[in-house]
Amino acid sequence: MNKIFETKTTVAPYGRVGVLHTRAGDVQTPTFMPDGTRGAVKSLTPQQVTETGVQVVLANTYHLHLAPGEQIVKRLGGLHSFANRTGPMLTDSGGFQVFSLGKHVKITEEGVHFTDPSNGDKRFISPEDSIRIQLDLGADMIVAFDHLIGLDGASDADVQDAFDRTHRWLERCIIEFKRLTKDMKDRPLLFGVVQGGLDLELRKKSLEIVQNSEADGIAIGGLSVGETREEMTTVLEALAPLYREDKPRFLLGVGTPEDLKIAVENGIDMLDCVLPTRNARHGVVWGKDSKRVHLTNEKYKDDPGVIEPGCDCYTCGEGFTKAFLRHQFKVNEPLAGTLASIHNLRHMMRLCEGYRNSHGRMKS
Amino acid sequence: MNKIFETKTTVAPYGRVGVLHTRAGDVQTPTFMPDGTRGAVKSLTPQQVTETGVQVVLANTYHLHLAPGEQIVKRLGGLHSFANRTGPMLTDSGGFQVFSLGKHVKITEEGVHFTDPSNGDKRFISPEDSIRIQLDLGADMIVAFDHLIGLDGASDADVQDAFDRTHRWLERCIIEFKRLTKDMKDRPLLFGVVQGGLDLELRKKSLEIVQNSEADGIAIGGLSVGETREEMTTVLEALAPLYREDKPRFLLGVGTPEDLKIAVENGIDMLDCVLPTRNARHGVVWGKDSKRVHLTNEKYKDDPGVIEPGCDCYTCGEGFTKAFLRHQFKVNEPLAGTLASIHNLRHMMRLCEGYRNSHGRMKS
Repeated sequence: MNKIFETKTTVAPYGRVGVLHTRAGDVQTPTFMPDGTRGAVKSLTPQQVTETGVQVVLANTYHLHLAPGEQIVKRLGGLHSFANRTGPMLTDSGGFQVFSLGKHVKITEEGVHFTDPSNGDKRFISPEDSIRIQLDLGADMIVAFDHLIGLDGASDADVQDAFDRTHRWLERCIIEFKRLTKDMKDRPLLFGVVQGGLDLELRKKSLEIVQNSEADGIAIGGLSVGETREEMTTVLEALAPLYREDKPRFLLGVGTPEDLKIAVENGIDMLDCVLPTRNARHGVVWGKDSKRVHLTNEKYKDDPGVIEPGCDCYTCGEGFTKAFLRHQFKVNEPLAGTLASIHNLRHMMRLCEGYRNSHGRMKS
Repeated sequence: MNKIFETKTTVAPYGRVGVLHTRAGDVQTPTFMPDGTRGAVKSLTPQQVTETGVQVVLANTYHLHLAPGEQIVKRLGGLHSFANRTGPMLTDSGGFQVFSLGKHVKITEEGVHFTDPSNGDKRFISPEDSIRIQLDLGADMIVAFDHLIGLDGASDADVQDAFDRTHRWLERCIIEFKRLTKDMKDRPLLFGVVQGGLDLELRKKSLEIVQNSEADGIAIGGLSVGETREEMTTVLEALAPLYREDKPRFLLGVGTPEDLKIAVENGIDMLDCVLPTRNARHGVVWGKDSKRVHLTNEKYKDDPGVIEPGCDCYTCGEGFTKAFLRHQFKVNEPLAGTLASIHNLRHMMRLCEGYRNSHGRMKS
């Protein structure tokens, strides 16, 4: 296989600007990837998503497995055809959502038993199932199924147990992935997941295992799950000097402007999060210098300014005022969430573009 | 003032194709006008609305008066600037919504007392207030404040009373309109409202009064309020031979493909309704030959077809399948309502374009 990641510029000390080659096209990194949980980014058409500069859309395997089911998506030509998206797509493993079900989950070495919260049906997903489901969905980048363990309430033995299982499952995912993709002319990329909680020695060991496996890329899991920003930073800083250069690095579930900066400066190439669009739908957007603007605030009721002067998104570019947006939020009009989501995504993409154009001045 | 309406083609026996001149641009008729109740068509950006071929957007005076209030809209430059719409806009009088409040309404000769259902505040609107509010909102076509009376439960005396008041209020609206617009270089157009319920003699008398008043256009009110299609047709057929040619004719609150046909063939130039977008948000769209398609139906779960083959809307044109749309509706994704609304509006606009291009073959 050809080289999948090329570094264009390195940025002191650990950041980098690069290009990731996928079968659906090149991705300029660093890049933020919005979550199209159920096949579409909430409130936006695929055209509106593309117009924000988004390069990769993430879809959630767990949600699509439950509805409409990967067989329907596959029969309709896969995710790209189903959701009308031409650019690269990524699916997660489904593990995060399954483990978030808490007491409705039973983990065995074979896989995870859980209960579909929508109808009480008993379900089971093994690492092999996750790989097969993701290949049926048809994304261009997929993620190995890992054993996520919460930061709180887990004993050292539990953490070690989940840690070891994650790597055993990675090997099973790789075997299944190779088996199912061996006849593909243009296969997707597989990311393995680094775990280890806030234990830096476990994290480093996990990174070593994952990046020396046959997985194409490195995903950093188990962060942005309740720890402080300082704790997250400590983990990212510990890993930053240790990455191989030839594999892309994907930080799961992180998506504020502040966290983007920390991640990128510590060598992360890709990030995903629901936050920019979820916040937007609740009227929370990023203004000048990424300051949070609560659009429903009374003080904006006759504010003739746009969210972020100089922003080239549709919402700011067309001159939608904070007063208009506040009104639309106050009367629960769906357009409010659409216009705010367009801005927040564009804001994240402009930050990424800024890093990509910084040519080594990222730390300034 | 220059001629405001020009007939381009007449269509046997009473229909016509024409052009209506407004200060915000010409409107090719017949045309359907979607309701942007609170300043925006629900779920769509102004750009998406324009792309469906919509020429006029209607906004509701009642809703905008209550929130954010016409003074805020005026301070932000009026409806066009507030809602980012360059093409023609129309506001209704607010009467329909006020009278729909039922027992919370008290009518005097001076005007209407009502209670704001959102907070219990006591409110009052006179015919003069309605005109002033609409001029503050800044639409290009506005409607006189009439006394609407329900079809059921009203005595003959009540109907006659509301009927006479409507015409007295029309005179007051015209006086206030002339007073407030006399210094305007480019004033909006005022529509008077024809009432009279299902009584054909009252309807004809009302039409005579309204079309011989100084109002620029004729609005047909009090239909599509619970009567049968046959009853509505009887009223429209009774009025059809009696219209003056030089004034545009606007049928309020009517918006199915079947009713559009009846209206246009009986000389109506403009119609508005929430139905195409409201139905769309509930998954009900118009397919081939305007047949209703319920997108949430189980039978569409793996249907690879678009809503209406050959339709040039974004939704059909980009190939969004009924299976994808069904999935999005079933999981309550806002994109579903957006894509369905785009289709339904474009469907209505294509019907109007078909009439406009029919050159006298409308009855075929």
